[in-house]
Amino acid sequence: MSYAAPLQDMLFNMEHLAGLDQVAQLPGFEEAGLDTAQAVLEECAKFAQGVVAPLNRAGDLAPSSWKDGMVTTTEGFKQAFRQYAEGGWQGLQHPADFGGQGLPKTIGAACVEMLNAANLSFALCPLLTDGAIEALLTAGSEELKATYLEKLVTGQWTGTMNLTEPQAGSDLALVRTRAEPQGGGPRGNGSYKLFGTKIFITYGEHDMAENIVHLVLARVQGAPEGVKGISLFVVPKFLVEEGGALGARNDVQCVSIEHKLGIKASPTAVLQFGDGLAGSVADSAGAGAQGYLVGEENRGLEYMFIMMNAARYAVGVQGVAIADRAYQQAAAFAKERVQSRPVDGSAWASVPIIHHPDVRRMLMTMRATTEGCRAMAATAAAAYDLAHHHPDAAQRAQHAARYEFLVPLVKGYSTEMAQEVTGLGVQVHGGMGFIEETGAAQHYRDAKILPIYEGTTAIQANDLVGRKTVRDGGQVARGFAAQIEETEQQLQACGTPAAQSVARQLRAARLAFLEVVDYLLAHAKAQPNAAYAGSVPYLMLAGNLMAGWQLARALWVAEQLLPAGQDARFLQAKIATARFYAEHVLVRTGALRDSVVQGADSVMALPIEDF
Amino acid sequence: MSYAAPLQDMLFNMEHLAGLDQVAQLPGFEEAGLDTAQAVLEECAKFAQGVVAPLNRAGDLAPSSWKDGMVTTTEGFKQAFRQYAEGGWQGLQHPADFGGQGLPKTIGAACVEMLNAANLSFALCPLLTDGAIEALLTAGSEELKATYLEKLVTGQWTGTMNLTEPQAGSDLALVRTRAEPQGGGPRGNGSYKLFGTKIFITYGEHDMAENIVHLVLARVQGAPEGVKGISLFVVPKFLVEEGGALGARNDVQCVSIEHKLGIKASPTAVLQFGDGLAGSVADSAGAGAQGYLVGEENRGLEYMFIMMNAARYAVGVQGVAIADRAYQQAAAFAKERVQSRPVDGSAWASVPIIHHPDVRRMLMTMRATTEGCRAMAATAAAAYDLAHHHPDAAQRAQHAARYEFLVPLVKGYSTEMAQEVTGLGVQVHGGMGFIEETGAAQHYRDAKILPIYEGTTAIQANDLVGRKTVRDGGQVARGFAAQIEETEQQLQACGTPAAQSVARQLRAARLAFLEVVDYLLAHAKAQPNAAYAGSVPYLMLAGNLMAGWQLARALWVAEQLLPAGQDARFLQAKIATARFYAEHVLVRTGALRDSVVQGADSVMALPIEDF
Repeated sequence: MSYAAPLQDMLFNMEHLAGLDQVAQLPGFEEAGLDTAQAVLEECAKFAQGVVAPLNRAGDLAPSSWKDGMVTTTEGFKQAFRQYAEGGWQGLQHPADFGGQGLPKTIGAACVEMLNAANLSFALCPLLTDGAIEALLTAGSEELKATYLEKLVTGQWTGTMNLTEPQAGSDLALVRTRAEPQGGGPRGNGSYKLFGTKIFITYGEHDMAENIVHLVLARVQGAPEGVKGISLFVVPKFLVEEGGALGARNDVQCVSIEHKLGIKASPTAVLQFGDGLAGSVADSAGAGAQGYLVGEENRGLEYMFIMMNAARYAVGVQGVAIADRAYQQAAAFAKERVQSRPVDGSAWASVPIIHHPDVRRMLMTMRATTEGCRAMAATAAAAYDLAHHHPDAAQRAQHAARYEFLVPLVKGYSTEMAQEVTGLGVQVHGGMGFIEETGAAQHYRDAKILPIYEGTTAIQANDLVGRKTVRDGGQVARGFAAQIEETEQQLQACGTPAAQSVARQLRAARLAFLEVVDYLLAHAKAQPNAAYAGSVPYLMLAGNLMAGWQLARALWVAEQLLPAGQDARFLQAKIATARFYAEHVLVRTGALRDSVVQGADSVMALPIEDF
Repeated sequence: MSYAAPLQDMLFNMEHLAGLDQVAQLPGFEEAGLDTAQAVLEECAKFAQGVVAPLNRAGDLAPSSWKDGMVTTTEGFKQAFRQYAEGGWQGLQHPADFGGQGLPKTIGAACVEMLNAANLSFALCPLLTDGAIEALLTAGSEELKATYLEKLVTGQWTGTMNLTEPQAGSDLALVRTRAEPQGGGPRGNGSYKLFGTKIFITYGEHDMAENIVHLVLARVQGAPEGVKGISLFVVPKFLVEEGGALGARNDVQCVSIEHKLGIKASPTAVLQFGDGLAGSVADSAGAGAQGYLVGEENRGLEYMFIMMNAARYAVGVQGVAIADRAYQQAAAFAKERVQSRPVDGSAWASVPIIHHPDVRRMLMTMRATTEGCRAMAATAAAAYDLAHHHPDAAQRAQHAARYEFLVPLVKGYSTEMAQEVTGLGVQVHGGMGFIEETGAAQHYRDAKILPIYEGTTAIQANDLVGRKTVRDGGQVARGFAAQIEETEQQLQACGTPAAQSVARQLRAARLAFLEVVDYLLAHAKAQPNAAYAGSVPYLMLAGNLMAGWQLARALWVAEQLLPAGQDARFLQAKIATARFYAEHVLVRTGALRDSVVQGADSVMALPIEDF
């Protein structure tokens, strides 16, 4: 098997770190206890392992292809997506009212990980659809909801996010796509005509579903300049007639797809809106893609952030997913490949390379980082569920603030670490890793998009500094630190050598974190360059600390459970992994602190013309 | 221009860090002063920039291809290689007796960097040829030298290194290719017949030269087991007749080339020796590739290390080269690409992204790391020249020991850092970086082979721990530390804020280094696993320190030269870059020390069956 879903680790995280029991007490989640979680995860694992994972290599070898405006996905993708839809997987976390299963994110996130570990390119289509669903649920009119949601939730149609334009990547203030309000008439009523070019549209065109629901940022004529003049529109590939049947082709076309470093099976489209596509509504109604306003005019950025935040969390989970896939492949190779005698003289013949200390160090780095990021994502998912479903408003607000703080860490840290992990995955394979047939290189290539799309690591880091740390005067950040200190005390009380070592490293990392928070609070206003020069190191420090903290909590739980004698092997592995993380990864936080606190001046010292 | 050779930096390093004046006092190098260096570098830059660099992208798009045992290289490669040979570049560092220019490595290494920055795939062919020349110069008989050296040195023929077999990658003890001694007769005299399969043979077959001289590790019948039974052979693609004309085709064939992650233009061949190739000597003399023993039987590994060491140093320079290429491309993009307003409010419109602090941090990381590794390589090259040409034997030995210590650092650290630098190069480009047409992704893919071939980073690290640190009781390591301490004192005396900051970080890094050296000396014998668990972190620490030390020296020199008023802009940039390195890269040494000294147990704690 090319991928085995880490069910035990996922369930352990839900039960012991994320507090699934608490989530299952929330209104609407009464059925979502550990038994349900286990049943859902087992079913999802079967699908991911059996149906989706085997298509991963095929997608890299025979990517999506474009011809005459149509995109043909890799052979097998269409059928697999049908199974995905029929299995109800698209609706896992979405409301039962629209055909979903209404499960908490705490459970859903594990399924997202499996699907992505199985096949990052394939899983991107549902990931974007989830974002479109979130946006419509939050800001769509009743009519839009009635027209689109059930089809999206059941996987009959898919969704996209259309933000980027050639001149507007991270900078949405530069968006130029324009929307012209239409007057009355059968088609024009309350609708807009859109004109413009969008690039980097994931699954912007494909053959896996009957219709594609584009969510598009555009500027209504006369709107204010900059981000305050951006509105959000639904632009379906095929118009939807009353009663739900598919109508005419809309005036939106895929003019090309990109030739990419990785995730090759996932078509990245250039979409042209309102170019007068022959055979579309343009023939009868003149050029212009029919679009329908989501929410109110000029509030598009706000709605887009709903999609972005759902997607950012999910991209962080993609980081965990691809890291685990790379780890599993490297570990399997290291147990098989025989090279060289062990340095400790324990054998006179060549041995499997997993016996060599540096191979072990690489595998442990991959494993510990993956488990740490998975645990962080699990607790963030629970915070999301509590933030949205807790009956008490104050509790909701508190969990929302914690979730918001964690999103840039889940997205930024997990995806940056996925670079290191997939890179080590190639390295463990030696020369074989550089040969494409081995497959390790694909994970490395696929992973490279993760710290870029849905907001680069720098964008996440600016968000973390500005909106998540400075704006509340460091309150949420310090709240986390206080909880971490409690974990340190528990570990010290526990007293095993592993617990003590982890407590020591955790303390050092927490103090480094607090020092940076103080520094940022002191400098963000007066010397913004000095503060933002350290934004990414701060993100990496905070993410490292959060992942290390969750592993520290896991270690403590494992030490408590061990005497009972069940799952001893798993628990001992967890202790070894958590300790490794603290001693080899968490220790990096000191240098990150130094970079932020002592190094700001040298970041900006070289004049631009000297680069 | 896609690549501009950093001549000023290279000449600064030669003059002020590597001590070219000292090298130019060595017998035979009297002409090799700064003027010569400048003239050679300028000429080389013209060739690299004008002829070789433009072929880089073409080679990625239309790689070498295989058909019926023949390899056709990318269009333009053959002509460029002809120009390379005619320009005398292959012979730059080789003896005038065989048609070379006899220049020191101190100068030659800069040319190697340029050629590799221009086109890593192209430059690999000369790189391997250099290794073959070194081996023949050191261990070849007069007859072998007379037959092969001039052709290789003048670039008429090229050379290869044949070590790896499917079951024998890093572990040469497993080599199975066999060599059968031939009796008398016109062809058999003193020759051998070779049988076996070699893989991963760079430029093992191509169309750029008339003949290919394979240097092949094989086992003579009856030789001892393991590495002590390996011999080295010359196996030419075409036999060479008396007088030097090309004779019959030898019984060696290229059965396929690999489909790789990067360096795609460079053919990586599977070679079959002695399979009875039709139309070859096998037709008349029976199957078996004609081979000629280099040096003595069973000393092949020793000779191979001559090639390996030349190649390892050169691969380290490849790391510097690809890093610089990625840096130049990213810096150019960052000055052009307009996105978002500056965080310091210095402009109300969107600005080129180089104004954003995190883009600056990324570019500075790329720049500082590249310059640090380049400086380290420059001083290592000078040590090589002194080790080989100093009239005093004691001096030779001392410099040889220093060079030997530096080779795994140049190879290991520079190539590992090239991963980070080329990764940042993609990241600076944002979404465009993931699109292959941009070219940033090619550098990232090309770079991934560097920490693998010619000995993985782990192999370098084992060498550093065992042969270079423990064997002499840490003498060379501590010698470096003592010199570094002198630099700290100079910097403190200099007293500028930059000098003081760098002195502080350098001191911390040196103390971390010494702590690790002590740890390794204490544990290498008694607890080898504990020592070797930290081998790569030790290598990364030591490489980081050496690169940072050279930049610290450069900063000191720059502070001394500044008042004279010449090159002020270059000198100030050097100061800013050196300071950035100390404050953002050198600070990582603390975590590496902790990993080695405190973290050994957790590396091996997880039982193999639990991975």
